[in-house]
Amino acid sequence: MDWFEAKRRALTMLEEHIRAGRVDEDVLDLLRAINSREDLFTTSSCSGRIQLYEAELPGMKFELRTVGKWHRPIDVEELVLNGDNLWMAVLPPILHVSARDMRSALSFISLARRAGFKRGGINSAKDFKVNVEIQGTERMDVPLILDGRRVVPEDVLPEIVDRANRLLVRSKMRIRKLTEMLLENL
Amino acid sequence: MDWFEAKRRALTMLEEHIRAGRVDEDVLDLLRAINSREDLFTTSSCSGRIQLYEAELPGMKFELRTVGKWHRPIDVEELVLNGDNLWMAVLPPILHVSARDMRSALSFISLARRAGFKRGGINSAKDFKVNVEIQGTERMDVPLILDGRRVVPEDVLPEIVDRANRLLVRSKMRIRKLTEMLLENL
Repeated sequence: MDWFEAKRRALTMLEEHIRAGRVDEDVLDLLRAINSREDLFTTSSCSGRIQLYEAELPGMKFELRTVGKWHRPIDVEELVLNGDNLWMAVLPPILHVSARDMRSALSFISLARRAGFKRGGINSAKDFKVNVEIQGTERMDVPLILDGRRVVPEDVLPEIVDRANRLLVRSKMRIRKLTEMLLENL
Repeated sequence: MDWFEAKRRALTMLEEHIRAGRVDEDVLDLLRAINSREDLFTTSSCSGRIQLYEAELPGMKFELRTVGKWHRPIDVEELVLNGDNLWMAVLPPILHVSARDMRSALSFISLARRAGFKRGGINSAKDFKVNVEIQGTERMDVPLILDGRRVVPEDVLPEIVDRANRLLVRSKMRIRKLTEMLLENL
């Protein structure tokens, strides 16, 4: 299998995921803009989300239990406050892209940084593929319950949700920005 | 200037920074382990910290005002709660490394990932230098005051500080792990 064959397969799989409703709409145009580049294809993505999870400490991917997730702004009423240790996170958009060579990978990273995807880079290169991960910086992890005690009083919760929503909207704007930059640079 | 000359200058500058007390002790052994590699040198670093800052939203590097920062666990009493919008962050260790070529950059990234530095990669390559950024995942951004209102009640603050301290300690352990891995792999 060469890079072009890998891209062909990835695009077929992406279309299947889209038909099955497994790809978040907010990131669809961006995925298409990247895949329209001859030297790039996408392998996975998240458009950024608000997540409610149970964990002792934040960021421990394999030790947390997701209670709810939303790729859009939420209402306070959607938060169900249960459990011993409950956190609300805003997670930035993340994209995994395969590039044909180092040059095309670096040029994509440079464009992404200008759109506000400040984190990431080439994290591996094997056989014929250069693997890139890019990520926004819009992140927040707020404890809502710790050791069974409510951390944020009921009446302040709307304020927290408002900030989370604003942060999420900001990161969605980065997605649009990068999409536009890619289309202008064709 | 070639890569070896750039490394020589970077090491001289690092020694100056160390003498002036500008380099956090927690990261010194790691910097030395990286710089002992023939094909790598460090250009900047942070060992991870707890930071108190004023900002509308978290993560906005150029719109925040730092009120306090500590590269070690803190006591609740050290937090001065002032301002309209105050956040407490735990920021993961971050390292910038220059590699002599793609191969050595990728092999360092792979080692760093195994030590728990899951974020980052090669983010640029210019002239003779391949620039790598690696970062831990131990991050937390908790609002303490929003629009002048206290978000976290006084009596819950110790609980929040405890989690922040544990998260920071966890990220310092990654530094030791990576240092050991580099020394074993000499």
